[in-house]
Amino acid sequence: MAKVRVGVAGYGTIGQRLADGVSLQKDMELVGVADVAPTLSVRALREKGMPYKFFTASEDKRAELDACHIPVTGTLEELVKSVDVMLDATNAGVGAKNKELYAKYDKKAIFQGGEKNSVADVFFHGYANYEKGLGKQFLKLTSCNTTGLIRAVDCLDRAVGAEKVAITIIRRVADPGDYHRGLTNALQIDKAPSHQALDLMTIMPHINATGILIHTPVTHGHIITVVLTPKRELSVEEAIAAFAKHPRIRVVSIDEGFLGNASLFRYARDLGNPRGDMYEIALWSDSVVKSGKDIMFAINVPQESVTIPETMDGIRACMRMQEDRIEATDTTNKYLGIGKWKDLA
Amino acid sequence: MAKVRVGVAGYGTIGQRLADGVSLQKDMELVGVADVAPTLSVRALREKGMPYKFFTASEDKRAELDACHIPVTGTLEELVKSVDVMLDATNAGVGAKNKELYAKYDKKAIFQGGEKNSVADVFFHGYANYEKGLGKQFLKLTSCNTTGLIRAVDCLDRAVGAEKVAITIIRRVADPGDYHRGLTNALQIDKAPSHQALDLMTIMPHINATGILIHTPVTHGHIITVVLTPKRELSVEEAIAAFAKHPRIRVVSIDEGFLGNASLFRYARDLGNPRGDMYEIALWSDSVVKSGKDIMFAINVPQESVTIPETMDGIRACMRMQEDRIEATDTTNKYLGIGKWKDLA
Amino acid sequence: MAKVRVGVAGYGTIGQRLADGVSLQKDMELVGVADVAPTLSVRALREKGMPYKFFTASEDKRAELDACHIPVTGTLEELVKSVDVMLDATNAGVGAKNKELYAKYDKKAIFQGGEKNSVADVFFHGYANYEKGLGKQFLKLTSCNTTGLIRAVDCLDRAVGAEKVAITIIRRVADPGDYHRGLTNALQIDKAPSHQALDLMTIMPHINATGILIHTPVTHGHIITVVLTPKRELSVEEAIAAFAKHPRIRVVSIDEGFLGNASLFRYARDLGNPRGDMYEIALWSDSVVKSGKDIMFAINVPQESVTIPETMDGIRACMRMQEDRIEATDTTNKYLGIGKWKDLA
Amino acid sequence: MAKVRVGVAGYGTIGQRLADGVSLQKDMELVGVADVAPTLSVRALREKGMPYKFFTASEDKRAELDACHIPVTGTLEELVKSVDVMLDATNAGVGAKNKELYAKYDKKAIFQGGEKNSVADVFFHGYANYEKGLGKQFLKLTSCNTTGLIRAVDCLDRAVGAEKVAITIIRRVADPGDYHRGLTNALQIDKAPSHQALDLMTIMPHINATGILIHTPVTHGHIITVVLTPKRELSVEEAIAAFAKHPRIRVVSIDEGFLGNASLFRYARDLGNPRGDMYEIALWSDSVVKSGKDIMFAINVPQESVTIPETMDGIRACMRMQEDRIEATDTTNKYLGIGKWKDLA
Repeated sequence: MAKVRVGVAGYGTIGQRLADGVSLQKDMELVGVADVAPTLSVRALREKGMPYKFFTASEDKRAELDACHIPVTGTLEELVKSVDVMLDATNAGVGAKNKELYAKYDKKAIFQGGEKNSVADVFFHGYANYEKGLGKQFLKLTSCNTTGLIRAVDCLDRAVGAEKVAITIIRRVADPGDYHRGLTNALQIDKAPSHQALDLMTIMPHINATGILIHTPVTHGHIITVVLTPKRELSVEEAIAAFAKHPRIRVVSIDEGFLGNASLFRYARDLGNPRGDMYEIALWSDSVVKSGKDIMFAINVPQESVTIPETMDGIRACMRMQEDRIEATDTTNKYLGIGKWKDLA
Repeated sequence: MAKVRVGVAGYGTIGQRLADGVSLQKDMELVGVADVAPTLSVRALREKGMPYKFFTASEDKRAELDACHIPVTGTLEELVKSVDVMLDATNAGVGAKNKELYAKYDKKAIFQGGEKNSVADVFFHGYANYEKGLGKQFLKLTSCNTTGLIRAVDCLDRAVGAEKVAITIIRRVADPGDYHRGLTNALQIDKAPSHQALDLMTIMPHINATGILIHTPVTHGHIITVVLTPKRELSVEEAIAAFAKHPRIRVVSIDEGFLGNASLFRYARDLGNPRGDMYEIALWSDSVVKSGKDIMFAINVPQESVTIPETMDGIRACMRMQEDRIEATDTTNKYLGIGKWKDLA
Repeated sequence: MAKVRVGVAGYGTIGQRLADGVSLQKDMELVGVADVAPTLSVRALREKGMPYKFFTASEDKRAELDACHIPVTGTLEELVKSVDVMLDATNAGVGAKNKELYAKYDKKAIFQGGEKNSVADVFFHGYANYEKGLGKQFLKLTSCNTTGLIRAVDCLDRAVGAEKVAITIIRRVADPGDYHRGLTNALQIDKAPSHQALDLMTIMPHINATGILIHTPVTHGHIITVVLTPKRELSVEEAIAAFAKHPRIRVVSIDEGFLGNASLFRYARDLGNPRGDMYEIALWSDSVVKSGKDIMFAINVPQESVTIPETMDGIRACMRMQEDRIEATDTTNKYLGIGKWKDLA
Repeated sequence: MAKVRVGVAGYGTIGQRLADGVSLQKDMELVGVADVAPTLSVRALREKGMPYKFFTASEDKRAELDACHIPVTGTLEELVKSVDVMLDATNAGVGAKNKELYAKYDKKAIFQGGEKNSVADVFFHGYANYEKGLGKQFLKLTSCNTTGLIRAVDCLDRAVGAEKVAITIIRRVADPGDYHRGLTNALQIDKAPSHQALDLMTIMPHINATGILIHTPVTHGHIITVVLTPKRELSVEEAIAAFAKHPRIRVVSIDEGFLGNASLFRYARDLGNPRGDMYEIALWSDSVVKSGKDIMFAINVPQESVTIPETMDGIRACMRMQEDRIEATDTTNKYLGIGKWKDLA
């Protein structure tokens, strides 16, 4: 069977990881990546010897790219023509413009969380609503926080049913290396309810969700606390057991040495994962407590890489590579090496 | 009526503010403060011209104090003999030892949150259980987070009744000027349930409480999100109205410019409050949301100063200066200037 | 003698402190302050009971101010007409526009460091070039880093002569409460030479200066290291003695407990200084070392308040209140309470 | 020729990277690594499938290791017996104790910067004093800051001669994932002169060195500014050219997008370097300025990985694998892939 041909627009924090993720999928082919300028990431691509073909999203910057000795294979438009599906990881707002190009050539596209929901036919999460994405032309992925949150909520929802959730998002404010945004010695609160709670309800309309988001001056991983009201009584042990079975949730504990989001980043680096990335969210077993019938727990969301698996799922859905949710996510997991640690435990 | 004579042991972050608080109470007299060494705070006391008499808690450091030209009025023991009640704000563990001295001279004492509950006859909060402290010899104040949290929970509990709360504490990890502890680019999680939730249940045994605590690398104010299950239906507007009536809760909003804990610190500095302190907790009106029947909201707790008013209340209770909770807290508030802003609104 | 009438445009971080500083000068009268909107600082002014008259810099926001119950005395233009000299602490660029208004009414004005040098007749520092400011219409103050740096360099220059300096500025990136700028877990380098080195040469053209600036994610005080080549041999002890005599330099040490910029902020809060401000720079005696003939040392610059005294000096210069540099700076110091600690040592 | 057999004691931040570095040297064999407990790094080793044999440094923790399913090959003593040279990256103080074991079996050992200089026969730097290490039994590597600093100073010293240096070290206070140390919203100053300046003089006794060290609350890379007095006039361009030729110095610029230490960490991650490590220091070309005859510049030191190449050099020296400094360092560089980017430029 012919491999599905994939292109990536926007070679930044997310775009690089999407390109790496696609190149690991044995049933996909990464045709190339596109960006506008010789950013640090593009310079690193060159220093690595151009493992991916580079297309320029703007002829205006061609001279600048040439001056930096970045080999250019062609234009974004040429890339679009050569693929079956585009993954759009450009800055917010650009994706909506790029959509016209994708539509012109009747290509499928998956947008990242920064774009408005209206850019896509369906707002997508690999585990929660895979079926909704089947055969659709335009998908939009949930944002990093929402992607990780839905994994955990969907996990318990499928186990015992969930009525409502109240979340507190302790958000990392910038990625490592970001100099265009930051916060110094301050916590910042957003108006409630947070968009992540609203987004969760779009994907899982049968659950009532609300929440408060606080920005914190750190770079490695969001932590979310969830107060979830289950449909039937659920013990701490049952909840942990359910999480432990989920391929994209890693159950960890303070006693093992996972003291916070920075421990998880360190662990991923020590594992030798490229960039110190981790595809799984972490669930602290020693955070799980009961509040009456409700269950409360804390997860860690590695913001740079958490959406990569669900985006691979999105390719599978819109290209109808697999019809079945579990078959699709399992295939993604196998190629990304997700869940191997489960065999060790 | 003779003023109640008060001494302060431990002239650090809390001790200084207790001394300032007592000196503002027109029905109390600050006899003096005690510490062991010429810390920065003691040096500042001298530079200010010794507004408070200084007693040495350890004769060993007498030479060191003399070398820094700190006038010493006497020993801690002499201070204890001269007072009706001691406020103990020494480092955790020292208070338990000092207790022997207080007992020897049959003096009353109020310990801060760092000591074990067993050090005291009653675990105290001015608004929630004033009556429990009446005439007792040894009180222990709730810690800063618990003090602020209980204000908010007690407020709604008295309005409509509260069944249970699930809290997320986003804790500032150090005070401004702390070099002995700190966290750099990391969030740290504690084992659940947090001690603040357990402490709340000790003070308010009719409420079921649990929670998760996350340390964050900031210095100005804890933020706590609370999911509270009321006994009867409570609207967002009713909740805000109840908070707005509480003298020690300041209702603020993002639209006014209160973007997070650092805005509140800045505002207190701009008000000209000594040290940029604020006695009130803040409640963000734009954080209040409903989760089914539950109500969710976020408060800011100024960790350095929040326990001062409740400690003044504690003096009133253990010395039986007022028998009535409202009369006592109103007197404290009047002398500390709390609640004046309510007249402006 | 009639008091010099002063107005302040821009009631932000610097503007508030200028207003406080002027109100302490017994030979000046603060006519009022102007700003455009009900910022947190303006709201705090109201909560304090309007100790300063407020003028609106923009009639457009009048309704907004009224809605917040901010009493408005008049317009910025009316304020300008009522004063002898305006202190302009508005955002960069606005001062240049306001200058037209000041010129229209033939008023003097002193601009803060954010404006371009061309806005003023002279680039001013109270200690280094007081005489240049005498009787001039428009002065521009050096920025916070440059003001503190020049105090130290001028001190040694007047003692033994200085040939050249090479500085490293370890810059705090935001003020407490700033949410519009920040840096998270990153150091940021500027192109060398830093503007502070160039500015120093404008004020002190006989000294060769260069330097590198690194932004750091903290809010309390810049630290600058200086490698200074003196004209004649200078020992560590002589240098410390020279610094210790300067009214606006506070010699501190690690042994006393001054471990860094945050210790100085804490100390100023413990002193009871409004907002925890300090007018003096600090010089660490245990940082002073020799490098061949060169002398190296580190100073701390409290960015929010350091320019206030030199701005008062500027009023004295442009209004010819004192003809003599020492007489002028001593008068400023007396009213601001600077140097009182020298009598204690 | 038989490969040199190497063991690593202490599998923490440095130990892991030493193990990786040795395993890349084609003329060395990594016999195994030793540690005392199932730390996160040891758990990651297991999750990776035990690419390195693990030896236990303390039989006391054997049960704990077994409980975590860490396969243990033997004891630290058995590891020592099996190797030619041990790399000791244990916590400060432990190395001195381990030395007895190395001496007992007459093995060579290289200690990391945390140990006292007296632990070793020679204080070593691959480029600056390779010859001093030839055939010695015990070497001690310079610490991370000193290693990076000496690279730059030695580079110019060999080019034109260096008389003296005055350095300002802007030190990252913790590594990513560190929870046992940290600083929050504070700069901290050490007593001058900094040990790095003193250490430089031990290695390069012909240079006069002093300096000031400031700790900053960040995790990715120290930045050092250097004011260097050359023996003969040196232009900015000559200095940059000299740096650019050094295999372990990467000349970067702000214009390329390298805005600070976090940019370099991001770039190393984007390069796909394991853990986002970089062996080279970076030198900002836009930081190089003249101060009279002196030259001033800023470098970035990646603290976790910078000493790895010089430690490999140390093995080469003490085992006399190469007699010549350049031959030795070139061999290390070749196997670590250092300097490949030079061909691209």
